[in-house]
Amino acid sequence: MTPRTPRTAPRDPKQDRSRATRRRLLEAAVACLAERGWAGCTVAVVAERAGVSRGAAQHHFPTREDLFTAAVEQVAEERSAELRALPARRGEGRVPAVVEALVTLYTGPLFRAALQLWVAASYEEQLGARVAALEAKIGRETHRMAVELLGADESVPGVREAVQGLLDMGRGLGLANLLTDDGHRRERVVAQWSRILEGILTTKAPAAPRPTRS
Amino acid sequence: MTPRTPRTAPRDPKQDRSRATRRRLLEAAVACLAERGWAGCTVAVVAERAGVSRGAAQHHFPTREDLFTAAVEQVAEERSAELRALPARRGEGRVPAVVEALVTLYTGPLFRAALQLWVAASYEEQLGARVAALEAKIGRETHRMAVELLGADESVPGVREAVQGLLDMGRGLGLANLLTDDGHRRERVVAQWSRILEGILTTKAPAAPRPTRS
Repeated sequence: MTPRTPRTAPRDPKQDRSRATRRRLLEAAVACLAERGWAGCTVAVVAERAGVSRGAAQHHFPTREDLFTAAVEQVAEERSAELRALPARRGEGRVPAVVEALVTLYTGPLFRAALQLWVAASYEEQLGARVAALEAKIGRETHRMAVELLGADESVPGVREAVQGLLDMGRGLGLANLLTDDGHRRERVVAQWSRILEGILTTKAPAAPRPTRS
Repeated sequence: MTPRTPRTAPRDPKQDRSRATRRRLLEAAVACLAERGWAGCTVAVVAERAGVSRGAAQHHFPTREDLFTAAVEQVAEERSAELRALPARRGEGRVPAVVEALVTLYTGPLFRAALQLWVAASYEEQLGARVAALEAKIGRETHRMAVELLGADESVPGVREAVQGLLDMGRGLGLANLLTDDGHRRERVVAQWSRILEGILTTKAPAAPRPTRS
């Protein structure tokens, strides 16, 4: 029932203004979350930040949950677009380039905003289910794109889990970067894990030793 | 100037009571953070939860920052104690057992509490520097223990970064477990990365291919 998705009617100036307002609100919501956390961001705070009246904000997003989940959905779409914009690359240098790009997704303001929402959702009941569903969707999409960009063959045992672990590492690196600039350490970790992953992805059989039978 | 560390004077009943009060406050603070986040936890809320008067709580912890950084320090000490309590293990099965134990540290209530504080510290100025210093200390200690438990030889190129990446992955897995029970997926990821890490740690030379010279 929320007017979250503008109808795809023929363009008219009123609708264009409405879309621009919505976009300003979403951008302000992401920036607010990244800077002030969930507790510091209400619809009123975001409206003021966006230079939009409170009434107009509430017309677009009737509840605080509507606004912030839409904002993180926006974050996710931007993250996907960033990934899709990566130049396709084959052969040498592909894995390190893709790993670096994936990890970069977790260290910018977009991840910071998502993290704030994610953590708030762990104790805000009304946010919980919506954010969990959203994060599951984002997780699947990111995994799918990582597999494609890396050219990973998931039919090889262990490759699927290796890619998943890489994305978990990206999230962990994002978290480590939250309070301090962790760039120098991260660079070395990413270089080493790129080499390890490259070893796994470029051999036909799994590079890691299989568990010994007892 | 805060009476955070009880003096090691001869024990007397009054001091014992004071220590017990302090401990109850710290436990209540950790539980509160994990359940309600920073915004939902004030000294008054924690005091009530601990069954301690507000005056007594403020005697132990003059500010909210004192209380919660002490609580997370407590978290860190408990995490270290859990790690030290792991049975020393050599040879086969050592790496998977240690990796599983390390990852478990990031999926319990202690990590949840630390995560809430960590995220709050990203926008609460008074909390920022203290939590950053604390997390750096915890990070170093966890790394040191991981190296020891894994029997990792950091003089071998890449081993240090491999262990760091593992801990980053653990943090990321903890984050993924925040909103939904991620146990099933995590189990497979951990099993695969244990095998990979075992391959790296049990060879004299780095197992991963070295970067090719251009």
